[in-house]
Amino acid sequence: MLDLSTSAKNMRSSEIRELMKLAADPSIISFAGGMPGSDLLPTDIVDGLYASLSTQEKQVALQYGPTSGYPPLLESMASYLSSKGIDMTDQSLLVTSGGQQAINLITRILIDPGDRVITEDPCFIGALAAFLSYQAHLAGVPMDEEGMMAGPLRETIEKRYDSIKMVYLNPSFQNPSGIMYSQKRKKEILGILKKSRFCLVEDDPYCELYFDETDPPDTTPFKALAEHALPVCYIGSFAKIFGPGLRLGWLCGPSELIEKCELAKQSMDACSSSFSQVIAHKFLSQGSMPGFLKTVRARYAKRARIMLETLEVTMPEGISWTHPRGGFYVWVTLPESVNAADLFKAAIKQGAAFVTGNAFDPEGIKNNCLRLAFSHTPEDTIAQGIKIIASSLRSLL
Amino acid sequence: MLDLSTSAKNMRSSEIRELMKLAADPSIISFAGGMPGSDLLPTDIVDGLYASLSTQEKQVALQYGPTSGYPPLLESMASYLSSKGIDMTDQSLLVTSGGQQAINLITRILIDPGDRVITEDPCFIGALAAFLSYQAHLAGVPMDEEGMMAGPLRETIEKRYDSIKMVYLNPSFQNPSGIMYSQKRKKEILGILKKSRFCLVEDDPYCELYFDETDPPDTTPFKALAEHALPVCYIGSFAKIFGPGLRLGWLCGPSELIEKCELAKQSMDACSSSFSQVIAHKFLSQGSMPGFLKTVRARYAKRARIMLETLEVTMPEGISWTHPRGGFYVWVTLPESVNAADLFKAAIKQGAAFVTGNAFDPEGIKNNCLRLAFSHTPEDTIAQGIKIIASSLRSLL
Repeated sequence: MLDLSTSAKNMRSSEIRELMKLAADPSIISFAGGMPGSDLLPTDIVDGLYASLSTQEKQVALQYGPTSGYPPLLESMASYLSSKGIDMTDQSLLVTSGGQQAINLITRILIDPGDRVITEDPCFIGALAAFLSYQAHLAGVPMDEEGMMAGPLRETIEKRYDSIKMVYLNPSFQNPSGIMYSQKRKKEILGILKKSRFCLVEDDPYCELYFDETDPPDTTPFKALAEHALPVCYIGSFAKIFGPGLRLGWLCGPSELIEKCELAKQSMDACSSSFSQVIAHKFLSQGSMPGFLKTVRARYAKRARIMLETLEVTMPEGISWTHPRGGFYVWVTLPESVNAADLFKAAIKQGAAFVTGNAFDPEGIKNNCLRLAFSHTPEDTIAQGIKIIASSLRSLL
Repeated sequence: MLDLSTSAKNMRSSEIRELMKLAADPSIISFAGGMPGSDLLPTDIVDGLYASLSTQEKQVALQYGPTSGYPPLLESMASYLSSKGIDMTDQSLLVTSGGQQAINLITRILIDPGDRVITEDPCFIGALAAFLSYQAHLAGVPMDEEGMMAGPLRETIEKRYDSIKMVYLNPSFQNPSGIMYSQKRKKEILGILKKSRFCLVEDDPYCELYFDETDPPDTTPFKALAEHALPVCYIGSFAKIFGPGLRLGWLCGPSELIEKCELAKQSMDACSSSFSQVIAHKFLSQGSMPGFLKTVRARYAKRARIMLETLEVTMPEGISWTHPRGGFYVWVTLPESVNAADLFKAAIKQGAAFVTGNAFDPEGIKNNCLRLAFSHTPEDTIAQGIKIIASSLRSLL
């Protein structure tokens, strides 16, 4: 065996991957993968978009493009970001190969081994993997129903000030908890960060997936609320508003930072798929998004409702869970004595799966929680899957 | 400004990018970009492939896929690699976001700051960028018309043995020189590497682009010739046999290494574009490739012939250049007293562009060479562009 780099030696070996393989068995009712329902993906819209391409656009789709992104797509994305209240003065925009690459790039240009990242606790698993791959140290800050808690954030900063380089959070329908940050909490956090020299990395892939069309929550991002002096990198993705298979996201932040990210991206994958970018630009510019979102919001809302109603009637006492107003996830907290890995083993034997809580713990330890994704499970099997998990849980208590 | 990571601080600021921006002016006859001719990209084939997709395949195209790659594509790629004589025993295959990502991944899992990579001199610019981004030290080995020279390779290894981690080369119609390795040289190099513990990284995107259909050169890769004990990572790409815009390549090597690369990729971009993978699988499995390659080989051969003939009749004495039997590039060597940057400035004023040699120098210094790509310049303007470069050169001599 060859001598590996320090980075390769330190990669967290992935138990999760093994669990996910089990969960991929089609006979299992799976709440594991954090992905859109395949039946909800806009294949018919893509047919129309493809049919509208000129030969020249198809040539662009098959050719290399600029590392920063396909210029017409950058324009349509900038006008989308403006509509969210983001001021682009001194800011730049980079097309990335999914939101994951955006997280990876900003980590790459900010983090040396041993530097610290403040995350939510629990935190998105892909972000944890990116931070750890650059040998970052982590500091998880607990959440309540309004987001990352201000007191513990302040304490963490006081204790660790010198090593901290960035704060990472997921403001809308957080992965894995489903929590939506209140505007009050956003302002409170911005107040705390005001004097720091940290970069705030705001990863916001779920902001369009609120359930109530008639009374949507306020999803104005940190980036639109922050004072100009605070560096905020805003990450978005086409994964949840179009399709993850395109592998397209974006990173919007201070121009000096984005320039460095572009250089790093150049040696990482040269540019993101031109094919995906040409299609995504048509999706935005031909106005396909609003209608598509309206359809999927209703479907995700319905899936969430079935899941929450079934949890209500089947779960034993002493179990709590979040009540998301959008997104993909419900986060369940078990009594501390119960290990979610045991529940996973029991449930999968009966035919249902989820992701155990330790995957989202910055320390990789705490395991009395679980993430249930309702997004990709057909409406007619959600109740049955939850019943299996509930009865497996009863058998463990 | 935020405090950047060591990696970000060390990124080579890119003069080349500035030159390339100049070269992108459509009124310039450009031999700069190393890319297929847009007019040669198979847009009509893609129409057919897209039309053949079932709704289920379109859902797969829009959904996340496994990090390792879309399983049917992995199968069709494995059978393509077998046809090149590669034995897959204990080897694994990873789909990557272009060949660039494959180079980046293998560098990431093998190289710590200060470790050394042996490269060709001159060397592919994207590989240099990836190596430098991980703070590798480089050692360039000169080439002759049969490839990397054996004597200097042996000397470099003797001098630097302890720090060397990998050897990187481009065996077919090398970028930037156009040189095709002889089978004799391949065996000689394998003999030298036999006892080392280095990884041989064989990056082979141009192997299908030989000019003479009736007498193709022997492109059997190092990977098929090497003894099993020597770890060889074979990198390929769809960029030159289909279209770069798909951003699809592959990495084939010892399973323990590929597993680590897969973990690194997971935190880099989760998976490559499913859309591209579904299309690429159809391209391979429906047998579109042989006919397409036949067409483009003839076109590239014609472009090369026009360039070489024009160089012959226009270049002043004392200038030499390579005579490629395939690929995209001619490598021109000027007298040592001439700086290619001066030639670039003179030529671009008259309306022609290329890439200066220092971009491909592992040390980033030597600059009496230039790379001419004939691949993406229409047949009817190649002669005119070469004449401009020749007359600019005369004015400098």
